[in-house]
Amino acid sequence: MAPTTETLTAERILEATEEVLRRHGPAKATVVDVARALGVSHGSVYRHFRTKAALREAVTKRWLDRTSEALFAIVGRDRAPETLLREWLCALFDAKRRKAGDDPELFATFSVLTGENSRVVDQHIEELTAQLTEILRDGITRGAFVVTDPEVAARAVFHATGRFHDPTYAGSWKRPEAQAEFDAVLDLLLRGLRAADRPQH
Amino acid sequence: MAPTTETLTAERILEATEEVLRRHGPAKATVVDVARALGVSHGSVYRHFRTKAALREAVTKRWLDRTSEALFAIVGRDRAPETLLREWLCALFDAKRRKAGDDPELFATFSVLTGENSRVVDQHIEELTAQLTEILRDGITRGAFVVTDPEVAARAVFHATGRFHDPTYAGSWKRPEAQAEFDAVLDLLLRGLRAADRPQH
Repeated sequence: MAPTTETLTAERILEATEEVLRRHGPAKATVVDVARALGVSHGSVYRHFRTKAALREAVTKRWLDRTSEALFAIVGRDRAPETLLREWLCALFDAKRRKAGDDPELFATFSVLTGENSRVVDQHIEELTAQLTEILRDGITRGAFVVTDPEVAARAVFHATGRFHDPTYAGSWKRPEAQAEFDAVLDLLLRGLRAADRPQH
Repeated sequence: MAPTTETLTAERILEATEEVLRRHGPAKATVVDVARALGVSHGSVYRHFRTKAALREAVTKRWLDRTSEALFAIVGRDRAPETLLREWLCALFDAKRRKAGDDPELFATFSVLTGENSRVVDQHIEELTAQLTEILRDGITRGAFVVTDPEVAARAVFHATGRFHDPTYAGSWKRPEAQAEFDAVLDLLLRGLRAADRPQH
């Protein structure tokens, strides 16, 4: 990339870092590599990211944030609670499936990076379950869901659908039956949230 | 092991194979290693298992069968359907957790072997979901569950609880919150199976 007079923002550095990762895989994306790609001095990158680890953590966060921001937009939609929950979980599966399918090499690269940055991944999962909690809470208020503890239930929904968003399973998302399997889990969970408590048999 | 005059059965060979795996990890357990451990000629092992691949597949099947046989005993218990389903899923989680916790090295060894023998793993999953289907079918007959297609629902229950039996997650089973997370998923699923269908909101 040719030297440029544009202001060097953290966002521009991270954009270039993702491009370096896309081209060269997870081993690359050091401060030196990124500075070279941007045609700037190492020092000007170091001003934003003090270490290679900080740079790699930030680019991982940016990658995950793209998903959580897209999902956050859904939380605000004017929908019946059950439709909203369905749309949110479908969007989560679609977003992960698209990331894995459209650019498998970059997805594999970010799987290495998420493995290195468990703190960022934990935060990402916290954000997603907070969004789910919000949807459940709204559904309880509107009388659509019967849930004792929306936070516990949100985590349960997140765990129960893990097969359809945990990158570990990315290889199975292309299978023709994946969508039907996802729908079956979703239907069962929605029935569980909707159901009035009945005494055990 | 000293030479022996006991009849050399397939079961004795597989027992010895598991012992070799326990001691030396997944790289070992060739026909030659196992024959040596048994103090018999290679030929007498080959009579039961023609190739190293066949031996490794059989020992993997034996390892997985121990779980499915223990679970099969539960299917026949005289219990209310919901209790039965709960006991079965708890037993599955317990069995996997015990295998992973009691002998982590052997568990890691068998994780390598299951990775090599996906056909055996698929059969194992088919057996487990067949048992689950049986429990759901019985529950439908006895009016405890409302399920349109017990096979589809069984698979959904299996997928939704994957976090608590898929070896990929073994590392998370020791976390103190694992049991509560499992219980939350189980409660939600049972409510979903129990629930009468209500129109969508």
